[in-house]
Amino acid sequence: MTELRLIPPEEFERAGDDLGLLADMCRANALVAVKRAGSGHLGSSFSALDIVVHLLWRELNVAELGWEHPDRDVFFSSKGHDVPGLYAALNALGVIPTERLLRLRRLGGLDGHPDVGVPGIEANSGSLGMGLSKGRGMAWAKRHLGRGGVVVVMTGDGELQEGQNWEAFASAAHQGVGNLWAIVDRNELQSDRPTEEILGLGDLEAKLRAFGCHVEVADGHDHDALAAAFAAMRAARDHVPKVLVANTIKGRGVSFMEHPIALREGGGTYRWHAGAPDDESFTRAHDELVERIRQRLPEVKLEPVPPLDERVSLEGEPESGAGMRRAAVSDEYVAAAYGEELLRLVEEHPELVVLDADLASDCRVRGIELEQPSRFIEVGIAEQDMVSMAAGLARQGLLPVVNSFASFLASRANEQIYNQASERTKVVYALHYAGLIPAGPGKSHQSVRDISLLGALPNVTIVQPTNAEETRALLRWAVEDADESVAVRLAIGPSPRRVELDSAPVFGRGTTLREGDGPTLLAYGPVMVHEALVAAETLALRGVQLRVVAMPWLNRFDTEWIAEEIGTLEEVFVLEDHAPVGGLADGLRRALDTHTRVTAFGVEGWPACGTPPEALRAHELDGVSLAVRIERALAVAVET
Amino acid sequence: MTELRLIPPEEFERAGDDLGLLADMCRANALVAVKRAGSGHLGSSFSALDIVVHLLWRELNVAELGWEHPDRDVFFSSKGHDVPGLYAALNALGVIPTERLLRLRRLGGLDGHPDVGVPGIEANSGSLGMGLSKGRGMAWAKRHLGRGGVVVVMTGDGELQEGQNWEAFASAAHQGVGNLWAIVDRNELQSDRPTEEILGLGDLEAKLRAFGCHVEVADGHDHDALAAAFAAMRAARDHVPKVLVANTIKGRGVSFMEHPIALREGGGTYRWHAGAPDDESFTRAHDELVERIRQRLPEVKLEPVPPLDERVSLEGEPESGAGMRRAAVSDEYVAAAYGEELLRLVEEHPELVVLDADLASDCRVRGIELEQPSRFIEVGIAEQDMVSMAAGLARQGLLPVVNSFASFLASRANEQIYNQASERTKVVYALHYAGLIPAGPGKSHQSVRDISLLGALPNVTIVQPTNAEETRALLRWAVEDADESVAVRLAIGPSPRRVELDSAPVFGRGTTLREGDGPTLLAYGPVMVHEALVAAETLALRGVQLRVVAMPWLNRFDTEWIAEEIGTLEEVFVLEDHAPVGGLADGLRRALDTHTRVTAFGVEGWPACGTPPEALRAHELDGVSLAVRIERALAVAVET
Repeated sequence: MTELRLIPPEEFERAGDDLGLLADMCRANALVAVKRAGSGHLGSSFSALDIVVHLLWRELNVAELGWEHPDRDVFFSSKGHDVPGLYAALNALGVIPTERLLRLRRLGGLDGHPDVGVPGIEANSGSLGMGLSKGRGMAWAKRHLGRGGVVVVMTGDGELQEGQNWEAFASAAHQGVGNLWAIVDRNELQSDRPTEEILGLGDLEAKLRAFGCHVEVADGHDHDALAAAFAAMRAARDHVPKVLVANTIKGRGVSFMEHPIALREGGGTYRWHAGAPDDESFTRAHDELVERIRQRLPEVKLEPVPPLDERVSLEGEPESGAGMRRAAVSDEYVAAAYGEELLRLVEEHPELVVLDADLASDCRVRGIELEQPSRFIEVGIAEQDMVSMAAGLARQGLLPVVNSFASFLASRANEQIYNQASERTKVVYALHYAGLIPAGPGKSHQSVRDISLLGALPNVTIVQPTNAEETRALLRWAVEDADESVAVRLAIGPSPRRVELDSAPVFGRGTTLREGDGPTLLAYGPVMVHEALVAAETLALRGVQLRVVAMPWLNRFDTEWIAEEIGTLEEVFVLEDHAPVGGLADGLRRALDTHTRVTAFGVEGWPACGTPPEALRAHELDGVSLAVRIERALAVAVET
Repeated sequence: MTELRLIPPEEFERAGDDLGLLADMCRANALVAVKRAGSGHLGSSFSALDIVVHLLWRELNVAELGWEHPDRDVFFSSKGHDVPGLYAALNALGVIPTERLLRLRRLGGLDGHPDVGVPGIEANSGSLGMGLSKGRGMAWAKRHLGRGGVVVVMTGDGELQEGQNWEAFASAAHQGVGNLWAIVDRNELQSDRPTEEILGLGDLEAKLRAFGCHVEVADGHDHDALAAAFAAMRAARDHVPKVLVANTIKGRGVSFMEHPIALREGGGTYRWHAGAPDDESFTRAHDELVERIRQRLPEVKLEPVPPLDERVSLEGEPESGAGMRRAAVSDEYVAAAYGEELLRLVEEHPELVVLDADLASDCRVRGIELEQPSRFIEVGIAEQDMVSMAAGLARQGLLPVVNSFASFLASRANEQIYNQASERTKVVYALHYAGLIPAGPGKSHQSVRDISLLGALPNVTIVQPTNAEETRALLRWAVEDADESVAVRLAIGPSPRRVELDSAPVFGRGTTLREGDGPTLLAYGPVMVHEALVAAETLALRGVQLRVVAMPWLNRFDTEWIAEEIGTLEEVFVLEDHAPVGGLADGLRRALDTHTRVTAFGVEGWPACGTPPEALRAHELDGVSLAVRIERALAVAVET
């Protein structure tokens, strides 16, 4: 295991106002934090860091006034995945203690995406495109309340594909919110491909000016140029929103992570957007940074930190965190099976077209883009546009398969899905990264509401497969047999265990994985079915034989099966990879309409950020906690 | 009652290719259809009609090839409220039978907003901003399938405030979808105010060109200019999306409905956006149109149509339909009470700010805009931007009250609401026009999913008041006492009856409106509580004493009250102004966790379009149907 060493805060004071040096020092510490966490976003943390440092150390008053002062300048990043860099800067400024920086993406540590519960974090972000509107609200309020300070929102360039940004620019200009500054981190790469390939921004300056903004352009790594740009923004007309297009280099500071070199080495895909580098890459990167730091701060001190907690790489955690791009493909892997089967279906069904919103690798549809380019549609980071475009494709007789993370697709494009479904066409919605796990990225990415968000649609079936075979079978069923639109929830991480299902899925019916004369527990998806089996194994040790049923159908049930298998029971337990509201248990209660008591164990409150075991335990959804909760429930039932 | 007379289809043939004449003839018939329906959108139907007629009679091949032909040109309007004009044109072309045109906004007739179930309608619209994405999907599919024809999507100018349009333009340019035409009906007015006042579009041509479109500009009422513009679009480069900015006059064709005269006469607000004109205005408008038609078609024949069905003005239907602007303010009126109380609260609470997305009159916040302008924020038609801006305001310590229709706010801005709630700030969401009624506008406006869309948020209370007093009390509670964000569902139409609640609302508790030793029925909101009381009155005639409970708390319950008042019952009935999934009944089943059987009567399937009685009966949610359903359920319960 590589030894990890951090530059302590006091060393940053010695760096004085050498902003370039400070940025590199932050890069070195962000790199360590991400390596230790096992995941995180280095590429855009590095492209943004010169700007972040310039703002916090020189341009803004917040470090001086403190993060509670009403007149402080407010800074936050709308592309919240670049927060490791900001965490490193806040640690250097003494706002975030080092112990907490060392708990990046860990329970009680620092969320994988910004959360206002962390000192120095001004806004929750992580899902793209909301920041400018939110920043405008803060800026409007400052003016209304007679408070000083500007509000500075950093956005990505790919992020500008989200239409909400253009709503926000137009309103900022119309409302004359001149104390709002936007900084576009123009690093020219999205999750792993050039912006110009995914969805070109064209003449960005012209767009911004047409939308009524004062626009400056500068090299985002040249501190003199940044100083001049900010001065010009302060000098610009009071009631005009300001935008700085900062030309940056993704991966800046580590030669082999820098665009365009890194893109070439990656054969056209950028490898350093998400995920922690392997030991060798980490060492090369860290050595290079420290070497350059030493040229300007010869005696820089590095303090060793405790080794990586082994639990980070436990069950369910994808090898490369939020990006998950390099997660091992195995036949226990739902996501991999989805990608393989979808490619097969595309080859078999000429009417099938696949849509993506800049998550092609994560959603495992890159293979379709490469092998069936004429059947692959990339819309950029614009989920609403993707869904309505799919509706149009369907109206022409094609069968679109729409891909994004469940948290974005079911939520942001919800009204567009309603509109499509109301046309009685058929679309398959692939809801990737559904559920609590992985829990490292935090609540913006964890989808524990999607069943509730689609459940009231009259003609959408919601399913979640438990293993690779079932993934293939349910996807094929959705494409070939389903007579209405289908939402397929998919776990994105590796399967905790290989779950054997001895039969193919039958519409509306569950599969008993473990017989037992004790209570019955229904679960869905590889993560929760695994925990259900652990609960059964635990209870078996205490003489209770828990019956475990995998139930892939979340809102459609076979009446006969329900009546015989569930309706005959006095009590049934449901393990939700979802909030307790709007999930499978609610559906069963509606379907049963009998006196069977349905007790749900779901994700209560906000989904916890941490490793899979941490998050599962925090919600008492791990197998052992479940065993205890089931025993407790049975005891209560006996008493009553 | 004014006599209504339609110009029959054969008369349109006599008009030959006099497009201006044909447009006026369509205006006359659209006016009659809207008058007969009791609601509808004349202003933008009239501004768009020259373009619609020019497209269908001259420019496009669809009338010739038919609406099923794969190579047909596709035309639809993204601002679907202008569909009465299109219906009149489709009737003239023999696509829609006259009997059906005479059933605008009636069950089994023509939906208030476009639905593909109607001949000649290519896409569902009504909620703004989705059309360009959908049209691009159709255009992409045509190219992919080797089909001929262009796809022409009309949008409003105010509609361009929705960010999804800019996602769509950017993608159309990037994907080179040159067979997509957008036509902006640039009538310069939104629901009732100038676009430049609500959220100015600035240099629209510059924006469109910056987004990569080929742009033409023409007088939208000059058919030679339109012909030249379309010719230029056909001549433009193949792979560039085309946009025609058509300068039009809202209300065109009827002098006193035309902008700017109408705006001046309305004292700054435009009265003819939504709603049917009164008899006198109707007669003046129709006479003026017929007079001008006669100048070019002297012997034009007009056929009288059956008088207006009286049921149109029955319970629950706002006097002026979807616009509801001139609905009588009475103390039984939830919407009016909301506006009055909110103004009072704004005066009492300096931290309160009110946000609107171009529905100020419908949402009854116009008074705040006029009397407390510094506390009123207009964001234009951009619900996502509105919610995220509110989140920013809340982070600065203000208390935002966010207003829009429930169908748009809870759905389109869902992820933004999740993000705001995750910051643990407090925002009040006013979900106007919640539920099935009014049913004239159709499914794009009827909100029967909003409880399910917000129910899984950990910290949002959802309530719906039943009468004016309770509206004031619950709004005041939300502002002054609630410790989390609150979503207030509001009925927008007049209350069917005055419901007396002898006590102020108590958190989590319902109020028994009618005692009875028979079964218990819970309901919420003025429309459904009224139907519940009708059901009780009906059952009383048959000796069954139904107990009716008004339950304003939809996802928060007082445990003690539930245990005593509901948990002691063997069976409870719930009347949902919502889908049966995700509403009050699901919440009660979770809360009860006992053997009380909860039977829900909700809006099954897609909400029916029609008059309130028609829609309620179609879903068997009217009082009499409910009485029958309750008796049936009891009989079954006895048997089992």
